[in-house]
Amino acid sequence: MINTLENFLNNMDKINSIGFEEGQGVTRLALSKEDMKARDCLIRIFKDMGLAVKIDSVGNIRAIKEGRDKNLSSVMVGSHIDTVPNGGKFDGLLGVVAGIEVLNRMIKKNTPHSRSIEVVIFSIEESSRFNFSTVGSKAMTGKIDVEDLKLHVDENGISIYEALIDRGYNPNNLKKYIINPQKIKAFLELHIEQGPILEKENIPIGIVEAIAAPIRLQIELEGEEAHSGGCPMNMRKDALVAASEIILGVEEVGNKEAIYKTVTTTGNCRTFPGAINVVPGKAELFVDIRGIDGESMRRALKGINNCIYNVSKKRNIKSHVKVLSREEPVKCSENMIKLIKSICNKLNIRHKIMASGAGHDTMNMSKVVPSALIFIPCKGGISHNMKEDVYLEHIKTGIDVLYETVLELAK
Amino acid sequence: MINTLENFLNNMDKINSIGFEEGQGVTRLALSKEDMKARDCLIRIFKDMGLAVKIDSVGNIRAIKEGRDKNLSSVMVGSHIDTVPNGGKFDGLLGVVAGIEVLNRMIKKNTPHSRSIEVVIFSIEESSRFNFSTVGSKAMTGKIDVEDLKLHVDENGISIYEALIDRGYNPNNLKKYIINPQKIKAFLELHIEQGPILEKENIPIGIVEAIAAPIRLQIELEGEEAHSGGCPMNMRKDALVAASEIILGVEEVGNKEAIYKTVTTTGNCRTFPGAINVVPGKAELFVDIRGIDGESMRRALKGINNCIYNVSKKRNIKSHVKVLSREEPVKCSENMIKLIKSICNKLNIRHKIMASGAGHDTMNMSKVVPSALIFIPCKGGISHNMKEDVYLEHIKTGIDVLYETVLELAK
Repeated sequence: MINTLENFLNNMDKINSIGFEEGQGVTRLALSKEDMKARDCLIRIFKDMGLAVKIDSVGNIRAIKEGRDKNLSSVMVGSHIDTVPNGGKFDGLLGVVAGIEVLNRMIKKNTPHSRSIEVVIFSIEESSRFNFSTVGSKAMTGKIDVEDLKLHVDENGISIYEALIDRGYNPNNLKKYIINPQKIKAFLELHIEQGPILEKENIPIGIVEAIAAPIRLQIELEGEEAHSGGCPMNMRKDALVAASEIILGVEEVGNKEAIYKTVTTTGNCRTFPGAINVVPGKAELFVDIRGIDGESMRRALKGINNCIYNVSKKRNIKSHVKVLSREEPVKCSENMIKLIKSICNKLNIRHKIMASGAGHDTMNMSKVVPSALIFIPCKGGISHNMKEDVYLEHIKTGIDVLYETVLELAK
Repeated sequence: MINTLENFLNNMDKINSIGFEEGQGVTRLALSKEDMKARDCLIRIFKDMGLAVKIDSVGNIRAIKEGRDKNLSSVMVGSHIDTVPNGGKFDGLLGVVAGIEVLNRMIKKNTPHSRSIEVVIFSIEESSRFNFSTVGSKAMTGKIDVEDLKLHVDENGISIYEALIDRGYNPNNLKKYIINPQKIKAFLELHIEQGPILEKENIPIGIVEAIAAPIRLQIELEGEEAHSGGCPMNMRKDALVAASEIILGVEEVGNKEAIYKTVTTTGNCRTFPGAINVVPGKAELFVDIRGIDGESMRRALKGINNCIYNVSKKRNIKSHVKVLSREEPVKCSENMIKLIKSICNKLNIRHKIMASGAGHDTMNMSKVVPSALIFIPCKGGISHNMKEDVYLEHIKTGIDVLYETVLELAK
């Protein structure tokens, strides 16, 4: 029996029609009108499949296909459906709809399974709206409390807490919905790589061994504003040229630590006042350090701090570094990696043990239950962008691996 | 008889109360409500002084104190009263109110003069609103036509032409008001230096020998957007690190040409998409090259273009350079410089022959009539900023030099 992707693609199209605009990609910000509409659409799909649907206090949706033995812990598959502004069609949604596809195949084949299998949709995964990411999986694993929800606000000053209440959830019950790790056998997330490695190496499956954690810095540089024509070169305290030396320093540190899979990025440089005829008096940089090796990340941070110090001193400029976040890298379950590896070998699928540069809900889940993150390539490594695209053959391979892994775990 | 600054300071305060906000500096954008109110206020002052007031088709105001011989060419003194957003109290306005002070002294002393003396307020000097500077003096000297006024628009899409009509002027008559150089003996502008040189060298008067012209570039760099965690260092085409190398290259070129008084500035760096977790796919730089030595400026431009080419090639990034403007430096009248020098010597005032990095209406005037630009120091060289400030003693010295020069020319 050949598994076509017809049903899978129908479901993808159904959800991606929500928030899609021609030439603008998909915009389904967390708890937006579009996000809510997509949730409703998926709940309908779950109910049509005969699944029991549970929704928790922060909007996580769990759709359950009961196994023969209700006393056994269940197998969980899932991801998120919210997007960045002008995002792509696969980030997050792929993992949810792939979970549905796995259950559909089992329903169609009437496959027996002892353990219950759940498809989970994590709420508020992207940080785009509230500057706070993977909120759903953080709440589900007891990593945050109600105060955290009140602390993080969107650009209109609306907190996660307020937005949740506005959408009919009751975030005050957050503690009640923390999962009991005893009741979950494993968690699996299928996701696009969001990087270029698998495509470049022509490998269809990546099995993630560790998820990089970010250290995020905001660097403020204060020099002296001056008239671009009136101020001689040797009397300047130009904050932008200082910023440029630091940006190159950040790159140099990243190049040095590359063998440890640490990457460093200056994602934004802002210039003040930013007029063509004014020597910049202020510049602001936003730096992201990611890695799976804590030692290497600490070295990178130190290297960047040294660079900021040296440049500021040399150029007689004031600098202020604010650490926006500092998380530790997360290792995935070795047993799960072994299992997925053996399934790839059985199915004769090329695969690669690799790191995930991007953060995922798996990051939080793996701290309490054995978890695995499975990657498929995305074209050009492009993600968080409307050009995000995936080859159908890789989707099929990804779902095959997910299906076999779930079956093995739940049988 | 001691000349107090009481009257001068009263007039400064009167005009600066228009557009001033506590902690925000002065905002009197060209042809704004505030600009119009300040014009009305000055016209009242002129009329109270018994001067004849003429207004041309682009809003230049000429206030005339007639000399004994109407057949002689007249002496013109002036500057502008519009400001940048959140600007200071002296840029432009100083030169206009100093002109009024010169005439007031003459009226008080009943000083005889053969030539008529005019105070001129040039319209639309700052480029802040319409991205087009010294419009009034350009129009008065026949450097632009009606089409140019229609071409340049503000951020709301309103052209200079439309804004002028809206304020009751008739820009269609532009040609009619071009001055006849035969009828003007000389033009004088007193202005703050807008640079740190006079203050650092503790010299109260600068006599400008040449006004630097800007070459302005907009540089677009296109790399490849990528996930900051997912994309390894060696697979990146980071537009911002390329931009940083170019910013440092621009500075290096400026340092090399500094002995020729050429300065180079990157005034703004914009990053796209500008998110902390995205390797920048695009960056945009705005570069200003200023000098009084055409050869040196051409070398600087070539050096910057070479740098852009080399960086783009090395980093496999696309670049596009747009020349926003390219003007030639302007030399001031040697006879006028000699005259002002002799007056400084007579008054025993330390002075310095220097270049002006900033552009001024004198730039356009000096192409058709003998013109001079006199600088006084400003604190910290700060201008185009609410912190702009000037020592009273320097204002007094500046007005003394202006007064004696006008007298010498008009007697």
